[in-house]
Amino acid sequence: MAEPAQTLDGWYSLHDFRAMDWTSWKMLPSEERAAAIAEYRRFLDKLNTTQAAKEGSHALYTIVGQKADFMMMILRPTMEELNELENEFNKLKIAEFTIPTFSYVSVVELGNYMPTEGDPYENPYVQERIYPILPKAKHVCFYPMDKRRQGNDNWYMLPMEDRRAMMKSHGMIGRQYAGKVKQIITGSVGFDDYEWGVTLFADDVLQFKKLVYEMRFDEVSARYGEFGAFYVGNLLEEEGIEKFLHV
Amino acid sequence: MAEPAQTLDGWYSLHDFRAMDWTSWKMLPSEERAAAIAEYRRFLDKLNTTQAAKEGSHALYTIVGQKADFMMMILRPTMEELNELENEFNKLKIAEFTIPTFSYVSVVELGNYMPTEGDPYENPYVQERIYPILPKAKHVCFYPMDKRRQGNDNWYMLPMEDRRAMMKSHGMIGRQYAGKVKQIITGSVGFDDYEWGVTLFADDVLQFKKLVYEMRFDEVSARYGEFGAFYVGNLLEEEGIEKFLHV
Amino acid sequence: MAEPAQTLDGWYSLHDFRAMDWTSWKMLPSEERAAAIAEYRRFLDKLNTTQAAKEGSHALYTIVGQKADFMMMILRPTMEELNELENEFNKLKIAEFTIPTFSYVSVVELGNYMPTEGDPYENPYVQERIYPILPKAKHVCFYPMDKRRQGNDNWYMLPMEDRRAMMKSHGMIGRQYAGKVKQIITGSVGFDDYEWGVTLFADDVLQFKKLVYEMRFDEVSARYGEFGAFYVGNLLEEEGIEKFLHV
Amino acid sequence: MAEPAQTLDGWYSLHDFRAMDWTSWKMLPSEERAAAIAEYRRFLDKLNTTQAAKEGSHALYTIVGQKADFMMMILRPTMEELNELENEFNKLKIAEFTIPTFSYVSVVELGNYMPTEGDPYENPYVQERIYPILPKAKHVCFYPMDKRRQGNDNWYMLPMEDRRAMMKSHGMIGRQYAGKVKQIITGSVGFDDYEWGVTLFADDVLQFKKLVYEMRFDEVSARYGEFGAFYVGNLLEEEGIEKFLHV
Amino acid sequence: MAEPAQTLDGWYSLHDFRAMDWTSWKMLPSEERAAAIAEYRRFLDKLNTTQAAKEGSHALYTIVGQKADFMMMILRPTMEELNELENEFNKLKIAEFTIPTFSYVSVVELGNYMPTEGDPYENPYVQERIYPILPKAKHVCFYPMDKRRQGNDNWYMLPMEDRRAMMKSHGMIGRQYAGKVKQIITGSVGFDDYEWGVTLFADDVLQFKKLVYEMRFDEVSARYGEFGAFYVGNLLEEEGIEKFLHV
Repeated sequence: MAEPAQTLDGWYSLHDFRAMDWTSWKMLPSEERAAAIAEYRRFLDKLNTTQAAKEGSHALYTIVGQKADFMMMILRPTMEELNELENEFNKLKIAEFTIPTFSYVSVVELGNYMPTEGDPYENPYVQERIYPILPKAKHVCFYPMDKRRQGNDNWYMLPMEDRRAMMKSHGMIGRQYAGKVKQIITGSVGFDDYEWGVTLFADDVLQFKKLVYEMRFDEVSARYGEFGAFYVGNLLEEEGIEKFLHV
Repeated sequence: MAEPAQTLDGWYSLHDFRAMDWTSWKMLPSEERAAAIAEYRRFLDKLNTTQAAKEGSHALYTIVGQKADFMMMILRPTMEELNELENEFNKLKIAEFTIPTFSYVSVVELGNYMPTEGDPYENPYVQERIYPILPKAKHVCFYPMDKRRQGNDNWYMLPMEDRRAMMKSHGMIGRQYAGKVKQIITGSVGFDDYEWGVTLFADDVLQFKKLVYEMRFDEVSARYGEFGAFYVGNLLEEEGIEKFLHV
Repeated sequence: MAEPAQTLDGWYSLHDFRAMDWTSWKMLPSEERAAAIAEYRRFLDKLNTTQAAKEGSHALYTIVGQKADFMMMILRPTMEELNELENEFNKLKIAEFTIPTFSYVSVVELGNYMPTEGDPYENPYVQERIYPILPKAKHVCFYPMDKRRQGNDNWYMLPMEDRRAMMKSHGMIGRQYAGKVKQIITGSVGFDDYEWGVTLFADDVLQFKKLVYEMRFDEVSARYGEFGAFYVGNLLEEEGIEKFLHV
Repeated sequence: MAEPAQTLDGWYSLHDFRAMDWTSWKMLPSEERAAAIAEYRRFLDKLNTTQAAKEGSHALYTIVGQKADFMMMILRPTMEELNELENEFNKLKIAEFTIPTFSYVSVVELGNYMPTEGDPYENPYVQERIYPILPKAKHVCFYPMDKRRQGNDNWYMLPMEDRRAMMKSHGMIGRQYAGKVKQIITGSVGFDDYEWGVTLFADDVLQFKKLVYEMRFDEVSARYGEFGAFYVGNLLEEEGIEKFLHV
Repeated sequence: MAEPAQTLDGWYSLHDFRAMDWTSWKMLPSEERAAAIAEYRRFLDKLNTTQAAKEGSHALYTIVGQKADFMMMILRPTMEELNELENEFNKLKIAEFTIPTFSYVSVVELGNYMPTEGDPYENPYVQERIYPILPKAKHVCFYPMDKRRQGNDNWYMLPMEDRRAMMKSHGMIGRQYAGKVKQIITGSVGFDDYEWGVTLFADDVLQFKKLVYEMRFDEVSARYGEFGAFYVGNLLEEEGIEKFLHV
């Protein structure tokens, strides 16, 4: 019987992608648009307060291409809080002018292929990783993925030591991008359609391509990776919201 | 010729996932919203009466992410009753503000890989399992699944004893989660697009991930499991409906 | 070169699945709703007349779950008649309140794996099978299917005698359900996306699950069956239409 | 290195499938409906003039089932002309009441597996085949297809002589249907999602099923054919348009 | 461990496909339509200025068939500029009458399978290829593609020298079309759902079919190519916009 990898699980995560209904938004009188933006910024202020208290984190990015116009990623200690924030956003005026295009439900996860001593949840390094304050990097990349279970390429039938060795080699590639790309892995087995979500942050958008392409030649991706849709975007700072929504 | 497993079949089941059309809902005058909520609660009262009489059961959960805003799971002795309740809901005022996003038709099933003595339908243990009163657990997880029929990984071509041994090992994993996760298997061969629906209930949502992930390494899932979309949500108690629908 | 099975082909068949737009339907003044129902019943009366003359047949079922609210199955001697009836329905008032969700175009087919003597089209047994008057069974099940052509599991590369032997074994399972399930096979090669449509009729809905599940272990399904979506429903008798459409 | 088959390429082809929005069409005042029909017939008159001059051809068929209500197939010497006609149709009044459901862009193609002498484009037999005047057959069947590239079943890795032998055997089946089914092959590599479109014309609709089913047992289809959606329909003669659009 | 090919990366690229909502466009008063066209042409003028300064490039083509009515391809030095232009277009009046049907985000890429001397980014030949001014060819063809990772056909598990040899042979086919077809490869690993976008330009549309078909027999495509949807279209020169949008 195969031995599952143990994981450390932190904050729950919701990626929420939206397209703008620009036509309706333009039809709204400008003072109502201003009120809708102000209301949305109060919502973001609340998220900022939570983040300042290290009781969660969030990020806001515009998305390039037709898949979405912007994306919010929200991290919280419970699934209930995520759901409440999602509903709170849905009831805002601004939400009437957005079209949901994709979402992803998961939990920040640390793969535990390496043995650790003591209670890992007490380990400050682990805590920083599973309760992360999301960086203000210029770009984001998100994609969901599975490990393949197909004919002779069945990750879940491999012995633990083979999986561990491959994941180690995989991690070495990632480490070469330290300082260039910050990676947050969220687990979604039982929560959403793929097994993991990968969220990358970088100031140089080209590093996403270099990292993902280099990893694709690594056996763990080449033989065992199944990838969903890819989303790429640019940081939307709060002072940029006005401009983004200006019509 | 392969020998099919025998099953014990109980109540018919409908999982009905809905997104809210918040924009239209907000446009409804508040007294009409209140009337729509009251009408919906009378519908739920009727379901409660049926459940109290043990002539069926139901559950109501909000769903996290864009796949749906809430989900009703309804169990009844006949397919006609399910259909009537579905149509009754569809004719309620509140239904005008919901968008159907997914549904699943099945029947509560007990796999009969283990031999039993006497008429199993008279067995109280069996009755409790196939006519279950759904728990008020904090979280729900639903996904449909198939057994794979692909090249060398063809469940339906395996000898009965191999299938029985694998299902036994699979069941052992499930048993480790006793008290943490309640699992209801519904069969849908001939009723809906996958062969089974799996509905999990737990007070700790992370147990869904642990259970499904651990099982994925078990041969019966690793080689033979094909999974559909996953839905996860939070209990919506009747006293929470007002808040959920408040705009 | 493989030898194709010969088929006997009878009436052309259209399965037409529709969801109701209950919101718009409710907005229609009640006298207009009554007129629309009366008009629809006159359409059904015409179909009844054709059926009484044995110049075609039809069935009307509600469908459980979100895939559709009801389904009409219509059999006629020509593709033109099917098309005319489809267009006639589409121009009825009631059709304005329906949303097409799925349809299937095929022809009633009798697989001719067994040799027969004389002109089979003159054989009364054959005639009854390929020009069938659809039963008023309590439940219907519909699904389209293909024979697999994948790697080593390629039905169309098998010798005729292997196919014949497998189909015979398959038919034996079906025969065990005689009196419980009536099965109508329609061929759709060249007409629609799958190769066959299977329509099952039964008074006990559980027999659909038992039959389809048992067959799935039979080599012809286990190795060579590819299945589309499954639809299940309840008989909608004409006297039930009023109730079904009552809002 | 594999040797590609040479092709002879004639007129460019657009298959344009449309559903009718009957509800809106009925709401149009009858004189406006009459004007829209008259305008559409003038558009068809123009196509007829082109066809009479042998500078192109076209066909108009109703489609059975929900995939579309009617289909236009248009052949022209250039891609620009196709695009202009498409845009011209889209700007007609009638187009406001149609919903695009599928289209296919390709070019009439003659597979050149057999050697010919002289410039084939000067050959009258070739000219008739690649610049065809579409027949007024009672029925049409359309489906797109690919040659498979999957594991051991990879058409594009086969030696030319194997492909030629298989195509010859395939053509022999087709020849048995001479006089019953007219087949027009259009190539779409680089133009649309599949590699070929197949358009069949017949007065007896059952011949489509017989032909496609028989071919499916031929190795070239059995092992190497990947098929898209199938559309079947009935000739819509110009004098039938009034009736088809009458509401 | 496999060795990834190095790439040279130039301008970021957005392909933006749109269908026209002709019905709404016709309903707009003609002076408002004229104003919307004028505004759109000012947007294009700005793009022309950028292109004249060699700080980016763009192309505008109508698309044949229902997949889209027109397509803009925009190249810019940063992802932020692409996003801004996308949003700027979305806020134009004309955009209210377009329906987004597909988009693709990538970066102009030069595969570096051949060794070069010196800093390749200083090489004028390289610069011309990765910062290309798009040609005014009569036709465009676009499709996204992956290299296959499936069973024994796994590109990413091949040794570098095998990949290099196959890409060289592939390039030789391309070279035969020099002067007939201009090809721009954009990499999209980490940016969009496929690994590459291929944009072809030609004055003779048939050359797209010949090139793509010939390449399909090359091992790198035959065994390792996975293709997405294909789009084909005709040059829309600025003086043709008026006619294209005339209703």
